[in-house]
Amino acid sequence: MVPETQVENGEFAGWSTWPEEPFEHDAAGPFYFRVDEKGPVAAFRAKRKHMNAGGVVHGGCLMAFADFSLFAIAHEHIQDYGVTVAFNSEFLSGAPEGAWIEARGEVLRAGRSVIFVRGIITGDGKPCLNFSGTLMRKPKRSA
Amino acid sequence: MVPETQVENGEFAGWSTWPEEPFEHDAAGPFYFRVDEKGPVAAFRAKRKHMNAGGVVHGGCLMAFADFSLFAIAHEHIQDYGVTVAFNSEFLSGAPEGAWIEARGEVLRAGRSVIFVRGIITGDGKPCLNFSGTLMRKPKRSA
Amino acid sequence: MVPETQVENGEFAGWSTWPEEPFEHDAAGPFYFRVDEKGPVAAFRAKRKHMNAGGVVHGGCLMAFADFSLFAIAHEHIQDYGVTVAFNSEFLSGAPEGAWIEARGEVLRAGRSVIFVRGIITGDGKPCLNFSGTLMRKPKRSA
Amino acid sequence: MVPETQVENGEFAGWSTWPEEPFEHDAAGPFYFRVDEKGPVAAFRAKRKHMNAGGVVHGGCLMAFADFSLFAIAHEHIQDYGVTVAFNSEFLSGAPEGAWIEARGEVLRAGRSVIFVRGIITGDGKPCLNFSGTLMRKPKRSA
Repeated sequence: MVPETQVENGEFAGWSTWPEEPFEHDAAGPFYFRVDEKGPVAAFRAKRKHMNAGGVVHGGCLMAFADFSLFAIAHEHIQDYGVTVAFNSEFLSGAPEGAWIEARGEVLRAGRSVIFVRGIITGDGKPCLNFSGTLMRKPKRSA
Repeated sequence: MVPETQVENGEFAGWSTWPEEPFEHDAAGPFYFRVDEKGPVAAFRAKRKHMNAGGVVHGGCLMAFADFSLFAIAHEHIQDYGVTVAFNSEFLSGAPEGAWIEARGEVLRAGRSVIFVRGIITGDGKPCLNFSGTLMRKPKRSA
Repeated sequence: MVPETQVENGEFAGWSTWPEEPFEHDAAGPFYFRVDEKGPVAAFRAKRKHMNAGGVVHGGCLMAFADFSLFAIAHEHIQDYGVTVAFNSEFLSGAPEGAWIEARGEVLRAGRSVIFVRGIITGDGKPCLNFSGTLMRKPKRSA
Repeated sequence: MVPETQVENGEFAGWSTWPEEPFEHDAAGPFYFRVDEKGPVAAFRAKRKHMNAGGVVHGGCLMAFADFSLFAIAHEHIQDYGVTVAFNSEFLSGAPEGAWIEARGEVLRAGRSVIFVRGIITGDGKPCLNFSGTLMRKPKRSA
């Protein structure tokens, strides 16, 4: 299982990250996750680095964050290691620089080998991306 | 239309980028595109920054690159400005650090307002991601 | 707009259909829709004709019903005529003959030309299919 | 494995069907498949029963046929029994009554448990539906 670290300071104090994930933590992110009273949630603050040329969060950034969010949402169901098998999304609206980007969703079914997740990313509360994903559980060795 | 720049040196000399795209050029990329004798192609070299904790290119990176590739493939059909409306993908295999990541595909239909694209990303020639996307043409003003 | 008819007798008394739709009404269906206190809902009773060789509702039947359901869910947003542009789904579980098949969902965004819908099909209350679709409004003439 | 039957007469003489599939053979279909010099192919002749109210093949019919086609395309890779796990599609154009509807595609990867397929449905040679699917192999007992 990929080790997680809890953030100690700043806007995301108390949230967790997976710092051994170079792309999602350092290049595209960092993205954060935790569980609150409404369930699992993932978030980041939209900065200049996340923008596209049109001045809203890049679609590729939303999808990278959605992929991260699949694992945040399915976290308690993945004992060892999981991989994304299929991913779908629809782009509902753009989110500007400075927006609070948040993903919430639910595990639709956690089978023996396959986990189905769906969720919605919002920017300052407005729906930006609808997504669903199919994850497969894998023992780390045979990944 | 987002201005493009041609690379002058290095492995991607002669390829183009969209440098005014902060996420895809600076954070996740840079990703590159050109047209060769087989048609439009997009590419990048997998570096440490693109990896996941399992040592292969992160799924979110592949999707961000696929989103870039949709526009590289549909480039000649987008006069003004386009946005991704829907995106689908399947994860076929992992690509290790150092691999040459390349996307090729085709415009399935370019209608008056909607453009359909499909493609495959390979890592050193091995299929990694199957993707399809629905793009919508937009005059820049009403985007 | 496709004319609808209200059923007068039987299990679906009070529900509506689109009888001028040969495939969904006569071949695959009939499928039914209405609006109740929880919002728009579509339904049918799983019969032998809807089965696959494994004794559960055929995946193609679930998808045909999901396509019907997209329009049932988006009904109040489609003034003239609409077409499905993109469709995604995940198969969560099978539903046996005799099950009550029901779809509920929501319009995620109804833009000027594009409408985004997501929903879940259940069989006797158990989730069977997760789906999302992108619809495009069209004046009937230019369809 | 679901038993197949070869058609002896008519337009589809020499093609195969799965007659123990009530939905795809009797309600929505029959749909046909065979392998020719270009590889696996699935087909049917668009009749009145397959139409929507707009006079073209219903989107749900195209998806049901695409689901059938996934198994026709992956036929040699499925020893026991397989199920569709995820399905994506884009609607490229409509096909009128009387059109020859055909699906061709390829297995993108056949792993130990998961098979990835993509394909295109054409109507009289014109692309109608782009689709991709994720199948999972199952021994019949544990299906």
